[in-house]
Amino acid sequence: MLASKAFLQMWESLLPIGRDGSSGGYRRYAWTPADLACREWFRHAADARGLAVEQDRNGNLWAWWDVAGRNGAHELDTPVDRHAAVVTGSHLDSVPDGGAYDGPLGVVSAFAAVDLMRERGVTPTRPVAVVAFSDEEGARFGVACLGSRLLTGSLAPDRARALRDADGVTLAEAMQRAGGDPGAIGRDAEALSRIDTFVELHVEQGRGLAHLDAPLGVATSIWPHGRWRFDFTGEANHTGTTRLEDRRDPMLTFADTVLSARKQARGAGALASFGKVRVEPNGTNAIPSAVTGWLDARAPEAAVLDDVVAAITQAADGRGERDGVTVAVAAESVSPVAYFDKDLRDRIAARLGGAPLLPTGAGHDAGVLAAELATAMLFVRNPTGVSHSPAEFAEAADCLAGVEALASVLADLACPA
Amino acid sequence: MLASKAFLQMWESLLPIGRDGSSGGYRRYAWTPADLACREWFRHAADARGLAVEQDRNGNLWAWWDVAGRNGAHELDTPVDRHAAVVTGSHLDSVPDGGAYDGPLGVVSAFAAVDLMRERGVTPTRPVAVVAFSDEEGARFGVACLGSRLLTGSLAPDRARALRDADGVTLAEAMQRAGGDPGAIGRDAEALSRIDTFVELHVEQGRGLAHLDAPLGVATSIWPHGRWRFDFTGEANHTGTTRLEDRRDPMLTFADTVLSARKQARGAGALASFGKVRVEPNGTNAIPSAVTGWLDARAPEAAVLDDVVAAITQAADGRGERDGVTVAVAAESVSPVAYFDKDLRDRIAARLGGAPLLPTGAGHDAGVLAAELATAMLFVRNPTGVSHSPAEFAEAADCLAGVEALASVLADLACPA
Repeated sequence: MLASKAFLQMWESLLPIGRDGSSGGYRRYAWTPADLACREWFRHAADARGLAVEQDRNGNLWAWWDVAGRNGAHELDTPVDRHAAVVTGSHLDSVPDGGAYDGPLGVVSAFAAVDLMRERGVTPTRPVAVVAFSDEEGARFGVACLGSRLLTGSLAPDRARALRDADGVTLAEAMQRAGGDPGAIGRDAEALSRIDTFVELHVEQGRGLAHLDAPLGVATSIWPHGRWRFDFTGEANHTGTTRLEDRRDPMLTFADTVLSARKQARGAGALASFGKVRVEPNGTNAIPSAVTGWLDARAPEAAVLDDVVAAITQAADGRGERDGVTVAVAAESVSPVAYFDKDLRDRIAARLGGAPLLPTGAGHDAGVLAAELATAMLFVRNPTGVSHSPAEFAEAADCLAGVEALASVLADLACPA
Repeated sequence: MLASKAFLQMWESLLPIGRDGSSGGYRRYAWTPADLACREWFRHAADARGLAVEQDRNGNLWAWWDVAGRNGAHELDTPVDRHAAVVTGSHLDSVPDGGAYDGPLGVVSAFAAVDLMRERGVTPTRPVAVVAFSDEEGARFGVACLGSRLLTGSLAPDRARALRDADGVTLAEAMQRAGGDPGAIGRDAEALSRIDTFVELHVEQGRGLAHLDAPLGVATSIWPHGRWRFDFTGEANHTGTTRLEDRRDPMLTFADTVLSARKQARGAGALASFGKVRVEPNGTNAIPSAVTGWLDARAPEAAVLDDVVAAITQAADGRGERDGVTVAVAAESVSPVAYFDKDLRDRIAARLGGAPLLPTGAGHDAGVLAAELATAMLFVRNPTGVSHSPAEFAEAADCLAGVEALASVLADLACPA
């Protein structure tokens, strides 16, 4: 079967799994039946290609194209270095009501790229593997990139085991119910030592490539980013009887801070927004006693991010003083910048005939692994930029161009001169 | 016992009923055990004074000082007109975590005023009754002034019976469990025909009297008021990857509308605020697909209210256009102005030596009854203006001045020359 046809067949077979009938979006949360069905799909795709599947201690799935003598159609003719693998892939889990592309496109494209290399008679001198990282979105337990963070040890196993989902089920219980061994999670030096290079293909989550009129791009870095909790405390009161000048209404201070976050971000070339709010007591005829808003902010550089958050905080304090509202700001999580390997990035961009370079504000497993080994990301054009939504989309031609590019990059990396 | 001592004793005995241990606020919701305990307290206070208690078909409690030959210490010596009663009272139920004064002050003061009239040997020639209206706050079933609205027929019995609380229990079920007959609710022409005048004493819910340095005031009207739902619809997207110029973020439009509501209200001498918000999907790293905010607006006149709401709507539309956000506005409930009887009001103010007149933005049973008969309200100074909060407060001296004033007003009305 031609790789392009195999791509479309894989894509179609994955589409129904974990899809919600009413929203049309995906609910593939870690260790749920939908997630286990995705894992089964992965095993099937690997089996069909004679790739040997392993699930590592942290629940990440690997399909290896390197096992001499294995009962497959595509064995290697030359001996390989088990510790210099070229790995590609992404994840299969989703955010609540997520789209079909974020994650799965990178896994399906990885298998299709293996097909294309074989179709063209490419014989790697390094092992090649397809990976599906576990729980990248963190939709169930609240921590993103769980599989890669456990693999690298950047998340402590005890903390991970104790994470709870909305029903109070711990990650340890969920893994156990799915047949896993939560006692074995944690940094996996052996698994890491096998990998030389990781390339993740992903649908772009903005319109950077659409604006550049380019089907593909190469990532430079993941912006430093974080979330800050803003607690605005005023005084509960009756909306029908409290004079405006007697009010201490935290909704006003919150509203002003929402607008100021946008203004500061625009001025600094950064991103900042409030997407989550909690209001007490949240009644129409009650001036709130308290409003809590969560700021999500990201910037090209740490200093810019710091400046933007400081300016938003200062503006909130100033407005709070006028409103008789106290403002408390707490950093809930701040991630430093993650740079992808510069040599690898330039090599890939050159291989693709000068594909544009662009940063991203979103976290990825490739960003987590960047602290350990050479990683790179390929982005496929997203014409609308919509992400984390059932409306997420990429053109089939661009997806096939992505498979083509990935096969070319893997061939270059896995067959060094 | 002196009326002032009786007032304090009644006040103390009511304080523990339905009080939440952690917030210190009251949770006296209609037909719950706390409400039934308040009703028991009412019966006890009436019995102690030889007042005959009736619960009407709609759950409102009446204590009558008019029954010739009754076994009490204070019977009337002269025949009375059963259809020209002077009624005073308020309600005993509360909002969630409400204060001790809103409602109960009017009921306790009513009993104490009867005591004071007797202490002074006042012999009414009209029947006098103390009333506690059922479910004034609407905390359990979502509709305020339920008892008085059913009594006057301004709320349809079928609609009332079908109202549900947060646990799905209907008003009909709740009444039945409490020993009532939900089949009998609805306009009660006979009960209404007995009442000539209703005077409600209430703690002020703002600082109008505090600013005037006056312990008591007389209400002129209840402002026209209402609530409007603003639906801001944008587009869900990823906060880390969506360029500012590609966003359609309804949180921005909402925030701008919150600030514009305040500005319009200030300019028009009205009140307007957003106290309740709902955000979809309400995630820190998600640009909301939709934000819904509820506007509470009140003004001295209907035309001013209309203008304020129209100006807020227009500003929201304009900002929405800039944000790529659609704005839909729906009036959820709009109450016209309720004027208290002008002659009665002037007579009371004169009787109190020229007490200040002031309007209020809050709904009350007296406002509902104003459509049927002569009603008036006496306000007791609230030094902080705090209302619907455990911190709600009035000085004991002001409360006793309220009892004094109420007794004087009742003597004037119930002993016409």
